[in-house]
Amino acid sequence: MADSQETLLQKIKDQGDLVRKLKAAKESSEKIQDEVAKLLALKAQLGTEDTSPQKFTLKTPKGTRDYNPQQMTIRNDVLQKVITVFKRHGAECIDTPVFELKEVLTGKYGEDSKLIYDLKDQGGEILSLRYDLTVPLARYLAMSKISTLKRYHIAKVYRRDNPAMTRGRYREFYQCDFDIAGQYDMMVPDAECLKVVTEILDSLDIGKYVLKVNHRRLLDGMFEACGVPDEKFRTTCSTVDKLDKTPWEEVRAEMINEKGITPEAADRIGEYVRLNGSTELVDRLLQDHSLTAAKPSVDGLLGIKLLLEYCELYGIKDKVVFDLSLARGLDYYTGVIFEAVLTQPIKIGNEEQTVGSIAGGGRYDNLVGMFDAKNKQVPCVGVSIGVERIFSVLEAKLAAGEMQVRTNEVDVYVISAQKNFLEERMKICNELWNAGIKTEQSYKKNPKMLTQLQHCEENGIPLAVVLGESELKRGIVKIRSIKARQEVEVPREKLVEELTARIAELGKVEQNGQ
Amino acid sequence: MADSQETLLQKIKDQGDLVRKLKAAKESSEKIQDEVAKLLALKAQLGTEDTSPQKFTLKTPKGTRDYNPQQMTIRNDVLQKVITVFKRHGAECIDTPVFELKEVLTGKYGEDSKLIYDLKDQGGEILSLRYDLTVPLARYLAMSKISTLKRYHIAKVYRRDNPAMTRGRYREFYQCDFDIAGQYDMMVPDAECLKVVTEILDSLDIGKYVLKVNHRRLLDGMFEACGVPDEKFRTTCSTVDKLDKTPWEEVRAEMINEKGITPEAADRIGEYVRLNGSTELVDRLLQDHSLTAAKPSVDGLLGIKLLLEYCELYGIKDKVVFDLSLARGLDYYTGVIFEAVLTQPIKIGNEEQTVGSIAGGGRYDNLVGMFDAKNKQVPCVGVSIGVERIFSVLEAKLAAGEMQVRTNEVDVYVISAQKNFLEERMKICNELWNAGIKTEQSYKKNPKMLTQLQHCEENGIPLAVVLGESELKRGIVKIRSIKARQEVEVPREKLVEELTARIAELGKVEQNGQ
Repeated sequence: MADSQETLLQKIKDQGDLVRKLKAAKESSEKIQDEVAKLLALKAQLGTEDTSPQKFTLKTPKGTRDYNPQQMTIRNDVLQKVITVFKRHGAECIDTPVFELKEVLTGKYGEDSKLIYDLKDQGGEILSLRYDLTVPLARYLAMSKISTLKRYHIAKVYRRDNPAMTRGRYREFYQCDFDIAGQYDMMVPDAECLKVVTEILDSLDIGKYVLKVNHRRLLDGMFEACGVPDEKFRTTCSTVDKLDKTPWEEVRAEMINEKGITPEAADRIGEYVRLNGSTELVDRLLQDHSLTAAKPSVDGLLGIKLLLEYCELYGIKDKVVFDLSLARGLDYYTGVIFEAVLTQPIKIGNEEQTVGSIAGGGRYDNLVGMFDAKNKQVPCVGVSIGVERIFSVLEAKLAAGEMQVRTNEVDVYVISAQKNFLEERMKICNELWNAGIKTEQSYKKNPKMLTQLQHCEENGIPLAVVLGESELKRGIVKIRSIKARQEVEVPREKLVEELTARIAELGKVEQNGQ
Repeated sequence: MADSQETLLQKIKDQGDLVRKLKAAKESSEKIQDEVAKLLALKAQLGTEDTSPQKFTLKTPKGTRDYNPQQMTIRNDVLQKVITVFKRHGAECIDTPVFELKEVLTGKYGEDSKLIYDLKDQGGEILSLRYDLTVPLARYLAMSKISTLKRYHIAKVYRRDNPAMTRGRYREFYQCDFDIAGQYDMMVPDAECLKVVTEILDSLDIGKYVLKVNHRRLLDGMFEACGVPDEKFRTTCSTVDKLDKTPWEEVRAEMINEKGITPEAADRIGEYVRLNGSTELVDRLLQDHSLTAAKPSVDGLLGIKLLLEYCELYGIKDKVVFDLSLARGLDYYTGVIFEAVLTQPIKIGNEEQTVGSIAGGGRYDNLVGMFDAKNKQVPCVGVSIGVERIFSVLEAKLAAGEMQVRTNEVDVYVISAQKNFLEERMKICNELWNAGIKTEQSYKKNPKMLTQLQHCEENGIPLAVVLGESELKRGIVKIRSIKARQEVEVPREKLVEELTARIAELGKVEQNGQ
């Protein structure tokens, strides 16, 4: 029982204290041995009960990890930059529960549905952990009967995948989504999503990238033109989606052998998915009558053409590539789809890390309607930023010593130069905290001077208040600049004022330094 | 199949478009009827397949909720204030996965363990959702072999409770934890935890409160002195813990009837748990020889006495009450325990909302050791802020019209005064975004002037750029102050500069207004 374990541990501690005390007091060895025997008996009890410490391997669940303070600092900095861009575009923030009724997720993710985490049936509802933030958004819009919303949502999602964790892929990972819901004019919100991606990637400054764009209607038209039957459009899409990692020959084989596409159809698809370019490619394809015979192709091509025009106005057309091999795996897309890909591996130390896809999204006009009893549609377009891959690049840079982070923001450390100054330190800490100054002190009664100074240096704390008896008697304290190793004397009553001024000064230097 | 549902929905949409087009073109009713028939056939197909929209009740799981933009604004503001205090005390941030190996949570929560959410066994590890942030911290410290850490952790935790959701209690809820781990001098970190709570509650400004403190060792000593057997200490603690909501007579009955405590022991406990006060009560109890005959009582009383001294130095002693009825339910506490309680109901509109406990915590010196193969201990003390209750109070104030929030931060809305200005608007938005200005525009090609102005007023957007043909020809745009309903003309090339200056000015006014 947990109860008796606690009590037992406390008794062991007390008994240990007693033994140490007897030893310190140099009591008779007979007396000490008696008490040691009792201690051992208590410890034996711990062993025989089901209360012994830790018998299983201590780990986080497969595919997950803790974030230590350095990693959290990186994570919070990246998220702050992402949020800044989302807010610049007027997005509001929402949040949804980490789990949904299982039915909400059913039939939304095609072949990926097997990766959903289910909760145990403990009586009551059947629940699953969210797989992305898009389906919860659609459920939210339908449930709250909202027909226009520009929102961002930053939260963890869950996939029972077998990911390569070294490349920033986990079973629990952050998504940062920006979506625009509402019945608007064609491609206007879609182009803004692309603009948002470029602003984020530029502000994170992690290297060159392209934005691949394509259109689900064009893919449909292309499949139709190539002779793929209707009911195989989506599953063929899933196969085409593998082209970024898999050579065409393998993709072709999967189409023919697993998806039952004819070799002729596969080869015709193969011709198309090799194409990429810009407006001139759209124009060329609009002349391809075997393609445009299928109405969806024309819709898709005209959509892409308009999107490219808007990208020109948003100053990002040079970063956008119309790429017919882009398919995206998820079932719910209905219009434009896009993906941002880093074009160069990132050099970290002597190694190169290939990052690849770093953001993706598209238009999904029918998803909200699936949750509405009357099938009322709310057209949506959105993008998800793959921040985990960005975290992972920055963590590798940190590990390689190419980057530094400070994990706390303390400005002042209150130091005793002599013994028995804990109470004085506490009073000063209290004053500084009350003045809003980020302040720390040692939690030991009589810490060593050197230890305290080392703490400042190791933690990048810029200033220390140093308390000494002679100074205090004169109504003086010393302020020490840790880096410069210089001290100045300040009247006790001017301490807060002086520190506030120095901290403001440090802030300015830091800003100019960046 | 999801695949064919998507295709079908698209076909229905296309067919609908066709019918509308025919009607608009006033085609023959025969032709229209033919196409309508096809549309109905397609819709019928939707009905007969397992692909019809939404058949289950659309809801979030029991005990959970979505946060809309207003609620998120409140939540983010509260969390920001909490984080500011945590950082002021030098805390670093960590995060852990939302689920843990089930074994990690086993035996840590006493009678509350039945409230843990388990995941379904889908092959692989057996997992549970975290129940609090304290056990994951202890697991993290043991696993990473960390022996000193001051960290905060803000994250959702999960309890299969049947909470009163109107009072801000949910099955999924935020905890904001601040903990200090390390072998330090007695009560120094403990007192800082109390100081942190007061700074947070003061900064949130939600009314008067007291900090109740007690000591697990004193409770143990008291139970011993009253004649409760060792093995019933923790379970008696759970019963005493109900005293804040339950009258003594019921608590007494539970002790006797359910916990098997003798009526004499229960009555003696009843005498003690009625007591509360400050240092003078500690001193009086130190003279109570039947109590101090039990060594743990003395440890506890001396601990409380020292804690009160430190609270005096931190300027918070007037807010602290030593209360012998405070027990706290969780098993893992070993030293000081505390709880912050609002002393007045909060008035919202014509109603009063009783909030009660709003923060709680204590010392747990043996929890980390439970995860260590050699039972190596890392003493810890910490506090958890009940932010959900604070959210709930503020949401009620918002609903009662006693508070306003802005859910986006847009400074500038780009407006067309005439038709066919979408491209010009896009160019200006692009300029403003590139200059870091928070900017929005309508996603419609030709929005009405009035609609655009209304959007600004409803969303609290302070400034608009108004584009008109005659002005643009003269190289001029208009800046409109939405509140003042005043417009000034600005040269097109000075627009960014002028807006930046005005936004800075607005920021100053807002700061002074607070």
